[in-house]
Amino acid sequence: MKILKINTKSKNYNIYIGHNIVNQINKIIKKEKINFNKSLLIVDKNIPKNFINKINAKIKCKKKLVFLFNSYEKNKNLTYINFILEKLFKNNFSRNDLIICLGGGIAGDVSAFLASIYKRGLKFINIPSTLLSQVDSSIGGKTGVNNKFGKNLIGSFYQPDLVISDTKLLESLPKREVVCGYAEIFKHSLIKNKKLFLFLDKNLKNILKLKKKYIEKAILESCKIKKQIIEKDEKEKNLRKSLNLGHTFGHAYEATLNYSKKLNHGEAVLYGILSAAKFSNKLNFINKKDYQLIMSHLTKLGFVNLNKLFKKKDINKIIRFMQIDKKNNSKKINLITLNKIGRVNILNQFDAKKVKKFINSELIK
Amino acid sequence: MKILKINTKSKNYNIYIGHNIVNQINKIIKKEKINFNKSLLIVDKNIPKNFINKINAKIKCKKKLVFLFNSYEKNKNLTYINFILEKLFKNNFSRNDLIICLGGGIAGDVSAFLASIYKRGLKFINIPSTLLSQVDSSIGGKTGVNNKFGKNLIGSFYQPDLVISDTKLLESLPKREVVCGYAEIFKHSLIKNKKLFLFLDKNLKNILKLKKKYIEKAILESCKIKKQIIEKDEKEKNLRKSLNLGHTFGHAYEATLNYSKKLNHGEAVLYGILSAAKFSNKLNFINKKDYQLIMSHLTKLGFVNLNKLFKKKDINKIIRFMQIDKKNNSKKINLITLNKIGRVNILNQFDAKKVKKFINSELIK
Repeated sequence: MKILKINTKSKNYNIYIGHNIVNQINKIIKKEKINFNKSLLIVDKNIPKNFINKINAKIKCKKKLVFLFNSYEKNKNLTYINFILEKLFKNNFSRNDLIICLGGGIAGDVSAFLASIYKRGLKFINIPSTLLSQVDSSIGGKTGVNNKFGKNLIGSFYQPDLVISDTKLLESLPKREVVCGYAEIFKHSLIKNKKLFLFLDKNLKNILKLKKKYIEKAILESCKIKKQIIEKDEKEKNLRKSLNLGHTFGHAYEATLNYSKKLNHGEAVLYGILSAAKFSNKLNFINKKDYQLIMSHLTKLGFVNLNKLFKKKDINKIIRFMQIDKKNNSKKINLITLNKIGRVNILNQFDAKKVKKFINSELIK
Repeated sequence: MKILKINTKSKNYNIYIGHNIVNQINKIIKKEKINFNKSLLIVDKNIPKNFINKINAKIKCKKKLVFLFNSYEKNKNLTYINFILEKLFKNNFSRNDLIICLGGGIAGDVSAFLASIYKRGLKFINIPSTLLSQVDSSIGGKTGVNNKFGKNLIGSFYQPDLVISDTKLLESLPKREVVCGYAEIFKHSLIKNKKLFLFLDKNLKNILKLKKKYIEKAILESCKIKKQIIEKDEKEKNLRKSLNLGHTFGHAYEATLNYSKKLNHGEAVLYGILSAAKFSNKLNFINKKDYQLIMSHLTKLGFVNLNKLFKKKDINKIIRFMQIDKKNNSKKINLITLNKIGRVNILNQFDAKKVKKFINSELIK
């Protein structure tokens, strides 16, 4: 079991990473000195009932509630937030009581946003159950819900009191979900750590097979990169923007497909990284060798172009979604570009026309 | 014009206090280096149209929107929040754009909560137009809306980028609204500064008449006390609880009357202070001399007992509202008591029965 300490301006907390550690939740909570009288366990509906009961039995407090959450993007909205808030009010939860989330990124984002606005904030423990949430959304305090204008557009910054990342929870994930989480690990390496990239490139198969030694190292190193970035820039004023590598493209791809199951978030990010790398190459921002290393890695993963997903006629829609991205400060499109493996540029603003021309000539045939 | 600098963990910002200073909003914004492309002015419907236009004309940016807000407690809810959020999304506001609120506490709480959750936070300037909001809600970053369970139960901590407190705005306030704001000034003196209390007691008439020299001093000194407290404890872990002097009682009185116009927030706080002082006296927490000074001041203000508002049969309802107060960590009731003028005790927990007996014997005949 590894412990990674996160120190942000607003809160310090620990991330526990290990195999089969959720079983020790009572001990970990005690060690972390998290006290509460009531708990609400918000849990993904797909997690087996007997496992939920086992975890809930280990939580020691006066009143325990369980809420089964149907983790679809369409349930990640203000109406649902209000629905769960009422449950807390009805049971008179105080600011010193606790929400625990056991689920993936959707359940985690909703639970954390809830925790941040209930009486201006109560205690929050996150137990991410997918690889994607273990290496990404569970660290750094971004919370949020969707609305008809896009994903995660309403939310807050709210750090948890504790994160427990148990690799045993990953064993039941379909392969596609593993690749989805892997996308963010890969992204982290490209932003900040060529050594990690080389480790990933060499051990891709073992990581995707979730071999203990490899997956734990990949998660830990990935979390360390995100930790370094969010500690320096919790509220995404500058440096944290680097974590959006591939995301302006990626979010637009997801939105254009109306968040259909055809493309999950990690896949969108991989296509986004493909796009950002090609764009960086087109503009001669990145050296040929690193560009080829990235392309070769993406090819191993099966991400080569967007022809399976989009036709020419979709390009205008993609551009429109890129223009309303949260990160933009004006009509121009902010794109994170790659200088080399381990270094990105966050300050680029491009005309929509230029980006459109690029997508048209390089990505969608 | 006085400038009070507020330094919290999450943000540093200035409060400008003076007469007729809103007219200089463009200069102040420039001096504060607040840059933005779009602005939404959320303004209380009761503020004269020509004044709104005058202020809006002074704001320099590419796109300016105005939203007239009907400042009733019943409009302070999530539905309204969502309604204004959509306006921002439709106009594609970015995180670097600006919300300006010109209004009292209700408009300010709603605007600040909005600002905190739109794309996880955009820029926010508050121009409180009532005495209550100038000395209380505009400082310290508490935001929130009501729901059927009570007031301000859903919200966040979010500091503004700038506050402009213009005493000229107060001139159109009805006397009752002035007393309402005065309640918090009086409260601040009781918590932390006997010298201020003595100034208030001596100059009560001139302050309530809004005589420039007196009202500005009262506002500034009051803001300084709140500043000291929130700088040490932004998130209300301990010290900030002292600001709730009179508020557990007061909120329960408001809620029991269903937030009717019979009792405004400041009046509820004055009755709350009356209750807390009497309770502190009953338990021999406060010395007789200071207790009598407080009672004499409350008598000058016309706050002597609760007989005009409540009957014996209301007591159970009052107690129930006290039990669901945000500040409580358990079934017990947390009450701020007075040790002397200038010092309070925040750690008291009382059985509901004891509080009920006290209200029954001392407050409602």
